[in-house]
Amino acid sequence: MVSFTVFKGSEDGSIVKSTVTKDLSGDLVLIRITASGLCGTDVHYRTSGIALGHEGAGVVEDVGPAVKTLKKGDRVGWGYLQETCGMCQQCLSGRETYCLQRKMYGDANTDQGSFGSHGVWREPYIFKIPDALSDVNAAPLMCGGATVFNALYTYDVKPTSRVGVVGVGGLGHLAIEFAAKAGCDVVVFSGTDSKKDEATKLGAKEFYAMKGKKEVDIGHKLDYLIVTTSELPDWSIYLPLLAPGATIFPLSVSGDNISVPSLPFIQSGITLQGTIVAARHVHNQMLDFAARNDIKPMTQTFPMNERGITDAFDVLNSGKMRYRGVLVVDKA
Amino acid sequence: MVSFTVFKGSEDGSIVKSTVTKDLSGDLVLIRITASGLCGTDVHYRTSGIALGHEGAGVVEDVGPAVKTLKKGDRVGWGYLQETCGMCQQCLSGRETYCLQRKMYGDANTDQGSFGSHGVWREPYIFKIPDALSDVNAAPLMCGGATVFNALYTYDVKPTSRVGVVGVGGLGHLAIEFAAKAGCDVVVFSGTDSKKDEATKLGAKEFYAMKGKKEVDIGHKLDYLIVTTSELPDWSIYLPLLAPGATIFPLSVSGDNISVPSLPFIQSGITLQGTIVAARHVHNQMLDFAARNDIKPMTQTFPMNERGITDAFDVLNSGKMRYRGVLVVDKA
Repeated sequence: MVSFTVFKGSEDGSIVKSTVTKDLSGDLVLIRITASGLCGTDVHYRTSGIALGHEGAGVVEDVGPAVKTLKKGDRVGWGYLQETCGMCQQCLSGRETYCLQRKMYGDANTDQGSFGSHGVWREPYIFKIPDALSDVNAAPLMCGGATVFNALYTYDVKPTSRVGVVGVGGLGHLAIEFAAKAGCDVVVFSGTDSKKDEATKLGAKEFYAMKGKKEVDIGHKLDYLIVTTSELPDWSIYLPLLAPGATIFPLSVSGDNISVPSLPFIQSGITLQGTIVAARHVHNQMLDFAARNDIKPMTQTFPMNERGITDAFDVLNSGKMRYRGVLVVDKA
Repeated sequence: MVSFTVFKGSEDGSIVKSTVTKDLSGDLVLIRITASGLCGTDVHYRTSGIALGHEGAGVVEDVGPAVKTLKKGDRVGWGYLQETCGMCQQCLSGRETYCLQRKMYGDANTDQGSFGSHGVWREPYIFKIPDALSDVNAAPLMCGGATVFNALYTYDVKPTSRVGVVGVGGLGHLAIEFAAKAGCDVVVFSGTDSKKDEATKLGAKEFYAMKGKKEVDIGHKLDYLIVTTSELPDWSIYLPLLAPGATIFPLSVSGDNISVPSLPFIQSGITLQGTIVAARHVHNQMLDFAARNDIKPMTQTFPMNERGITDAFDVLNSGKMRYRGVLVVDKA
């Protein structure tokens, strides 16, 4: 049995420290947490009372008897996906994130998360972190990075593609960096010019401040549009920017409908592509790509405790996070 | 110079006979029309005063001096696409239907159509009809067949796929037949049971009468959903029928927005795919596939004259066409 600290949300949003005890049976792995990203989805779950965090990085401290590939001392991370059936067509074809029996953050293991001192997770859903990636940089890749890379990789975005990114935040800044490092021609759309310099540093070749604009001339049209804003954009502005056959990825999870004008959508052969976090084989490619290409999330770090987590939420909610909050465990 | 008869619409919807004279220059081909399908798009243009019809079949009667491959006596057809630039990325990659300079039915050549005695069209936009296809059967393939086949072919629908078809009409009945003859497991959704027998004959394995239904249990979920109804369906009924990663093809051209609930769309990795008629290389594959697999549109024929065209429109507008109206020129 192992005991460790977790941080949960609560009805009034305050962060509550708690202790969890788990049996290290089967293929379970005890991970000492070193860093965790803070994702928009954590905001949704903050008041639900579950343990928070799903962008974890850390070090293997102990393993259950059935663990095959991981050992004490390995640097590892984990993300949104926690369980799948392993038997359905989705699982068998490497698309297990769409397994109808999948368990994800918020569905299962709600007594622990990546906000805490440790976590106990199943070996098949843990990823080795390449040496070239620090824990602080690896953590935001476990969900945010895996989501944007999955869109680019799974739907065959090419190095020759002109890729629009709407919104520069946790997902958006990683979309810019991954697409730019894949050689794409990256065009960024943001509210104001305030993030222009950083977007350019991340690899954007063009930047458009869109606040109040009803139209914009970007010259060559876009092959892909990655939408990362929490609210869906005004399609009447963005559809005219798309090349025939372009693909839109609406990455933001929203309760609203996605509503696109039928005629231009059909007549230009546009694809609207729903997509979530990476399947595991894609996640591994993402980590390898990030290590080889020096992908570095822009992070703001906070201490892994009640105060630090609360502050991180406050900064995220104020819209001022530049660009991913990371909770870091004090090495002492 | 050649002169021939065309049938136009008019402001009050009556069909007007008219004579056109054209110069048979360059790569133009004079086609004696034998049959023409009647498509829903003709209904949109009926009162605009242009010559009607864009699903033509006939015989080459004469050719311009620059024509290279067609000769007098060849059986040929033509469809929606009439002109492209030949130089853009779409044209160069075999996706010329999305050329930004494209001219289609309603855009160009509005003084002639496939309702008439003859037409003069550019050689590159004319297709040879395989011997195994009659003119009456070939005509509806030039737009309707090319549209449904294009969705199946271009977006890699597999013989192992479970394919839903919403609506049994001009497009829908061809979608059933093409998908069934490609080996797919075809599931049909129609208002009532009235078309069940014919849908089954066309190859449907399951048939659901949907009028008044808020949900339906179809067992295994669908990999593709081809929507051919003139009004878009209630997505809350159809989204739960889709397998993870499924693709929806909204083939109906409508002025409305396509509005899908964001959350299930993203979380199941659904693709909403805009698509139109086939590019020419796909159109040729379609004709070859149709000939080899004995694709036979279910047609109702009408004589190619003012009365026949008016009657055909009336039957189409009444919703009673079974399933594609074809105007046929008297051989006398």
